[in-house]
Amino acid sequence: MTVKKGKLLIEGKVKKVYSTNEPDYLILHFTDNVAGVRSGEERIIKNKGTYNNAISSFLFKLLGGYHIRTHFVDVLKPDEMLVRKLDIIPITVEVWNFAGGSFSKRYGIAKGEALNRPVVEFYLKNSKLRNPMITADHACAFGYAKPEEMQTIDRTVRKVNAVLKSFFDRRKFKLINFKLEFGRYQDKIFLSDEISPDTFSLVDMKDGETKNKAPLNLATDKITAAYEELKNRICK
Amino acid sequence: MTVKKGKLLIEGKVKKVYSTNEPDYLILHFTDNVAGVRSGEERIIKNKGTYNNAISSFLFKLLGGYHIRTHFVDVLKPDEMLVRKLDIIPITVEVWNFAGGSFSKRYGIAKGEALNRPVVEFYLKNSKLRNPMITADHACAFGYAKPEEMQTIDRTVRKVNAVLKSFFDRRKFKLINFKLEFGRYQDKIFLSDEISPDTFSLVDMKDGETKNKAPLNLATDKITAAYEELKNRICK
Repeated sequence: MTVKKGKLLIEGKVKKVYSTNEPDYLILHFTDNVAGVRSGEERIIKNKGTYNNAISSFLFKLLGGYHIRTHFVDVLKPDEMLVRKLDIIPITVEVWNFAGGSFSKRYGIAKGEALNRPVVEFYLKNSKLRNPMITADHACAFGYAKPEEMQTIDRTVRKVNAVLKSFFDRRKFKLINFKLEFGRYQDKIFLSDEISPDTFSLVDMKDGETKNKAPLNLATDKITAAYEELKNRICK
Repeated sequence: MTVKKGKLLIEGKVKKVYSTNEPDYLILHFTDNVAGVRSGEERIIKNKGTYNNAISSFLFKLLGGYHIRTHFVDVLKPDEMLVRKLDIIPITVEVWNFAGGSFSKRYGIAKGEALNRPVVEFYLKNSKLRNPMITADHACAFGYAKPEEMQTIDRTVRKVNAVLKSFFDRRKFKLINFKLEFGRYQDKIFLSDEISPDTFSLVDMKDGETKNKAPLNLATDKITAAYEELKNRICK
């Protein structure tokens, strides 16, 4: 498919979204900006956009191989991905295999503790309401999704977790947690957004080091090298 | 069954729990104290215990008629209920048919707005952690219940809601929301606790007035009369 980049639709900090000459497709441009930095401030990690695009594309292709529908279509440039245009469902799904971060704080469970079973959480994407936790009931009651869509999302999330967990296991990483987003295209549910150090947290089995956007945000000139090493260990 | 009251096991503000000479049974004593009052302070509503016992017993019997297992066994005294001793699951279930209270605040939905479908929420009973919201996944991961128990609880809650909603509808009340607790006895899930103005919130279809423990807490000598009127309208 030959697509031409159209106009800028959404200017996010870490991703820009462009229209294309094909109405069903969009271009995601991965920037080098760091998420979670206070507005006004800026933090750049050189080539972060290309590493996140490479990792996301690789993992979307991996999931596609397991018959999981994703919005990924093609890598257009090192920092650009062609994706299917979805009707986005305003819910963030978070999956925990080990306690950590907000989960540890909320439930009083030590960071790093293995959970008996994966825990799937849904959050409303609404920063005004501070992204409150919801369930499938809330999503349906508020009109964001149909019950059968929430069932598909729940099943897909658990399958994605199983695939990613065993993939990262082979790469000698523990998959602590990750976030997913979904959308619909012609009544089918597709995985959207990205799957990158910006959305997952790993622990290196070799040295116990955490690999996610948090430590990669540290002010050091080794960050690009750390991203590159991670990309190389994942995408092979 | 002739049971004798044994020793005080739990001294709660609104309910006291006693052992009996039968190891599988307990006695719940409903006090006249008001819940949610700051510790040290005291608020008494004369005969509240008898009204809550009467309402709870009536509704447990109603649910029993729909093959819903409850811990209710018998009314022993106006303020005492004989119940089956359960292994309590430390989860509060909250059901919302209309937005209100904490739900309205959390999700930015106007108080009184009808929800498209009932919303079931689970909360961990852990005041140190401020009773955080959980899902069935958390309950199972933390070892509080098995997946099939959480499924039974979920189904039971929805059945209880259907029965109570149509019951209160016939009594000209809108059932806004209510809380339930569960326990297990010999691998079976039973409804526990109470079903009273302390745990549900109604709106009178006749005058739009809210009937729950909140307005009944107002400092007025009409409170006992209000409780009595509510009891008489429910238990007939």
